[in-house]
Amino acid sequence: MFQRRIKDLRQKLEKDKVDAVLISDVANIVYLTGFTNFSKDERESYVFVGQDFAYIITDGRYTEAVKREVSHLTLFERGHKKTTADLFKKHKKEIKSLGIEEDNLTVAEYKVFSKHFKNTKHFEVSHLRSIKTPKEINKIEKACRLGDLAFKHILKKFKVGVTEKEIAQEMENFIKCRGAGISFPTIVAFGKNSSVPHHQTGETKLTGNDFVLLDFGVKLNNYCSDMTRTIFVGQPTVKQKEIYDVVLAAQQKAVDFINSAIKAKKEITAAEVDKIARDYIIAKGYSSIPHSLGHGVGLEVHEGPHLSPKSKDILKAGMVFSIEPGIYLSDFGGVRIEDLFVLQDDKLKQLTDATKKIISL
Amino acid sequence: MFQRRIKDLRQKLEKDKVDAVLISDVANIVYLTGFTNFSKDERESYVFVGQDFAYIITDGRYTEAVKREVSHLTLFERGHKKTTADLFKKHKKEIKSLGIEEDNLTVAEYKVFSKHFKNTKHFEVSHLRSIKTPKEINKIEKACRLGDLAFKHILKKFKVGVTEKEIAQEMENFIKCRGAGISFPTIVAFGKNSSVPHHQTGETKLTGNDFVLLDFGVKLNNYCSDMTRTIFVGQPTVKQKEIYDVVLAAQQKAVDFINSAIKAKKEITAAEVDKIARDYIIAKGYSSIPHSLGHGVGLEVHEGPHLSPKSKDILKAGMVFSIEPGIYLSDFGGVRIEDLFVLQDDKLKQLTDATKKIISL
Repeated sequence: MFQRRIKDLRQKLEKDKVDAVLISDVANIVYLTGFTNFSKDERESYVFVGQDFAYIITDGRYTEAVKREVSHLTLFERGHKKTTADLFKKHKKEIKSLGIEEDNLTVAEYKVFSKHFKNTKHFEVSHLRSIKTPKEINKIEKACRLGDLAFKHILKKFKVGVTEKEIAQEMENFIKCRGAGISFPTIVAFGKNSSVPHHQTGETKLTGNDFVLLDFGVKLNNYCSDMTRTIFVGQPTVKQKEIYDVVLAAQQKAVDFINSAIKAKKEITAAEVDKIARDYIIAKGYSSIPHSLGHGVGLEVHEGPHLSPKSKDILKAGMVFSIEPGIYLSDFGGVRIEDLFVLQDDKLKQLTDATKKIISL
Repeated sequence: MFQRRIKDLRQKLEKDKVDAVLISDVANIVYLTGFTNFSKDERESYVFVGQDFAYIITDGRYTEAVKREVSHLTLFERGHKKTTADLFKKHKKEIKSLGIEEDNLTVAEYKVFSKHFKNTKHFEVSHLRSIKTPKEINKIEKACRLGDLAFKHILKKFKVGVTEKEIAQEMENFIKCRGAGISFPTIVAFGKNSSVPHHQTGETKLTGNDFVLLDFGVKLNNYCSDMTRTIFVGQPTVKQKEIYDVVLAAQQKAVDFINSAIKAKKEITAAEVDKIARDYIIAKGYSSIPHSLGHGVGLEVHEGPHLSPKSKDILKAGMVFSIEPGIYLSDFGGVRIEDLFVLQDDKLKQLTDATKKIISL
């Protein structure tokens, strides 16, 4: 599987007219190597691929593990004796043009590397990742299944006085006890806090009459899920119910739009889908969604395609993405409903499976 | 406190001869604003400071929370109507030279921003952070205290058949149940796995006769701790005990060196300290440590100063850093002992407090 991906990468080198590429993004390194130990916070590795070579560059902390787990690439151990520059010197003659990940490589790294390679250009690996294989979709689906279970579990834990942090921790424990990780820190927002789209889960206590917004994801076998539900503790007011219904309808409008485009065999642009849901919410008298409608999910919880007003992405079969409209009213509260979908040849299939009927606890 | 930090930053602008600085590193944004909601994985904010202005730039997802929590900076909301470029245009006349974080800003961002500011240079914020205030040291100490408790707790959980992942999760639960987070994913390595300095905690089961390497950190009130202990399940062999003693002595050599330099009122370079411990291990017939001897700890678990062979850092009172020598033998196992220290005017004070006597369970 990883050799196939290196082959695809080499085809893209040819297409992009670069002689080699230096991959620095950790998720792309995971995609190309299967090796998941590198930190996202520090630069601990590069993958350096040309038509006739393919290296994984790392240091002494990882060489033992890389030797064991990454047999399809040549290990280059950088350290006090050999630096990455030595490797570059070896190959610089054959590399007239080098692909780099401009959205990941830092200015400082670029200053060093551009001494060796004068001619660099942006290289996009994420497009290789955005169309998933059936195996990958299966992994994402399993992460979604565990997310559904975690949601069912947490519904039993709401009682007056419980804090946002306690709910988040209970949820994360449930997920971790089942051998998975979380794909991002769980967002739990009670009451007015739900008007902040990315509220930081805190010490707020649940009262008897509240919106509760839950946004959480599972990471299982390296693949992520992502889901948001907004529920009510106590009976929703007329206004709360109205907002909920508008958000849910906005999501359904986007889904219907995609399904009819599939039937009509029309090209589906991500920006169009965003517009359908966004315009519906505005037409109902609310502010435009203060974030994009959705995003791809895979090895990372945010990846391509991007469903946003300025996106140039075309939605294709095999893509997995979220659709997550929301309405947020200052000093009142917010509603967001988010599900994961996979675009199939015949229809848009929803991967997350928790109910979207109004839940009133 | 945050206004004081902006003032210090402005002094550094003057010293570095730049008219303004664009801060992109999330930990530095936390340091300057106290706002901790931004993701480390995606660019969600910048802080943009000159002598006469100080902005926090973010989007609609965060404006509610930033308004509430960051009153000492001017909020600039970027979005579909106003982009960061609009703000740059407003100030470009007064900014002849702009400081940027070259080790954080990406090539893609640089390409956009350098359209507005032709003259940019690297600006180092982390030096402001490396000398801690007594309040910061107090926070780190509290994180260390909880780490000590977690270590004591976990000693009761080792039994034949338990997996690395189960131990890591028990430890993280203990920490999270006490209102804290972890500063990095807990490393638990059984037996030969301990020969990989950064082993990925996995499904390996404990046998009756094993090295166990535990490397873990607590994050409490935004500040990190970091500690490593290597213990034995069953009686250590003569060779295991020998390695343990060499590593422990290497750490003590480094501590003694710093203390005598303090007494002699000599300047202490981080590279010298690294060399003391490294050379001792080599003199005892083992390979050089395959990582640096230590690193600063604060808002991030890895920050300045850097205790490594090539470091140019000078150790100063108020700095908090780890000293963590290790010996790793392929197919045998490894020992690392890591503690956190704060450099005081009169002595090096150890902040982590778990025993370093050989523990044999």
